[in-house]
Amino acid sequence: MRFTPISQTSSDGVTEELFTVGEIPGVLWTPEHATGPRPLILVGHGGGQHKKALGIPARAGRLVGECGFAVAAIDAPNHGDRPKDEEFVRFVTENRGRIGAGEDAAAVVATLHELIAGQAVADWQAVITAVQELDHVGPGPVGYWGVSMGSGLGVPLLAAEPRVRAAVLGLLGVDGLAETAARVTVPVRFLLQWDDDLVPRAKGLALFDALGSAEKTLHANPGKHGEIPGFEIDSSLRFFTRHLGQGR
Amino acid sequence: MRFTPISQTSSDGVTEELFTVGEIPGVLWTPEHATGPRPLILVGHGGGQHKKALGIPARAGRLVGECGFAVAAIDAPNHGDRPKDEEFVRFVTENRGRIGAGEDAAAVVATLHELIAGQAVADWQAVITAVQELDHVGPGPVGYWGVSMGSGLGVPLLAAEPRVRAAVLGLLGVDGLAETAARVTVPVRFLLQWDDDLVPRAKGLALFDALGSAEKTLHANPGKHGEIPGFEIDSSLRFFTRHLGQGR
Repeated sequence: MRFTPISQTSSDGVTEELFTVGEIPGVLWTPEHATGPRPLILVGHGGGQHKKALGIPARAGRLVGECGFAVAAIDAPNHGDRPKDEEFVRFVTENRGRIGAGEDAAAVVATLHELIAGQAVADWQAVITAVQELDHVGPGPVGYWGVSMGSGLGVPLLAAEPRVRAAVLGLLGVDGLAETAARVTVPVRFLLQWDDDLVPRAKGLALFDALGSAEKTLHANPGKHGEIPGFEIDSSLRFFTRHLGQGR
Repeated sequence: MRFTPISQTSSDGVTEELFTVGEIPGVLWTPEHATGPRPLILVGHGGGQHKKALGIPARAGRLVGECGFAVAAIDAPNHGDRPKDEEFVRFVTENRGRIGAGEDAAAVVATLHELIAGQAVADWQAVITAVQELDHVGPGPVGYWGVSMGSGLGVPLLAAEPRVRAAVLGLLGVDGLAETAARVTVPVRFLLQWDDDLVPRAKGLALFDALGSAEKTLHANPGKHGEIPGFEIDSSLRFFTRHLGQGR
C-alpha cells in the first residue's frame, strides 16, 4: 500500500499532510521544506477519539519544531473518518451497559482494545512502510506515543514490530496485556496518573511491571486520567531524542 | 553559628570549601570565582555514609558546573567526622541483630532515622543560615536532595523549614513518616527503584502517596537500591532548574 496525499498546509514551520494508506486515513507532520531521513514518531489516539483529537496536533508541532522529527497519526479502526463496524458498535453499546451495571471498566475496555488490536497493528506496519518511502521521512528510527487506548493498541504493536525502538505509554491497566507486554523489549516511558478515575492505580502499576523492557521508567503524577502535567511533554521529547537522535 | 572555613581547593571550575558551622562539619561547592546570590542545593547522604561519599562530589560538580548552583553537604549526626553517640552505636548494633533475626528492616531503619532527625533538621537550618551569609551563596532559593537516609532526614526538614522550595527524595518507605510527609508542600521528585532490595515496593509507593505536595512526581526504574540510572541525575538537574531558576 502506498502513501496517497490528500491535502497539504504549512504554518509556523510545520507542514501538515493529510493522506491515506489503503483504507487508513492519516496525517503526517514534518518540518517545512524538510528533505532527507529523520526519526518518525507514531501517535496513537485515545478511545472514541481520532487522529487530530485534543493535544495531538500541538504535541506533533513540538516534536517537529523542537526535535526535527516526522510525526504520523492515523484513525484507529472504527474511529475518526473510518467506517464503524456493526459488531464494534454493538460491542461498545453492550459494554457501556456492562460498565453502567457496575462491571470493572478497565476489564471491559480491554476487551474493546483486543477486538481491534490485530487490525491496528497491521495498519501501523503498513503506514510505517509507506511513510518511510517519502524522501522527507526516510528510513530513520521509529518511536511510538500512545496513552490509554493508544497503549492498548501500542503494546501489541511494540511486541510485534521491531522497527519501533522506543515508546511513551501509560494511562492503562494490565487487563489482557500481561503476556503481550512481557514481549516488549524497547525503552519505555510509562505515564501513570496517581488519581486516575478510569484506571485503578494497582492495574496501571501492574502493566508497568509486566513490560519486558530492561529500560523502562514510570512517571506518576497526581491528577485524574486526562490531567498529565505539561512538564511530562517536555520530558517525553527528551526521552525520544535520547533514544532516536535528533532530526535535521 | 557562623561559617568557619577550614580549607579551599578548586578544579575544573568548581571550588570546594571544607567548613564547620558550630560542631557540624560540611563541604560547600560553588562555581570558581563566583560572586552574588544563587540557588543553594543541600545534599543529604545515605545511612552509614558521609558528606563526600559515593556520587556526592560528582553530582555536586554537575549542579555547580551546569546550573551555577551552590551545593552544601554535611555529615549527619553520628556519621562521617562527627563523634559517635554511645546510645546511637548501641542502637545500631541492636538493630543489626533485629534485622538479622528477621525483623522488618524498613521499620528498624525508620527508628534509627527518628533518633537523629531532630538534630539533623536543626543542623540544616543552622547551615542554611550560615552559608547564605556568604557573598557567593547569598539568599537565593534552597533545594534539597537526599535519598534513603537522606529522605529519612529530609522529609522532617521539608516539613519544618519553609526556605527549602523543592526536593529530590526517594529510596525509602513510609514507616514512621506518613504524618510528617503529609506536611510537605513543595514540589518533590521521588525516585523509586522497582526492585529495591532494602525498601519494599509498596512502602516506597506509600511514602510517595503520603507526601502532601500538590506537585510531586514518582520516577520508578528497574534495579536495586543503589542502581538509580544516570539519566535520572540529568532529569533532577532540570527539576531543580525549573523550580529554583539558574545560577549566574
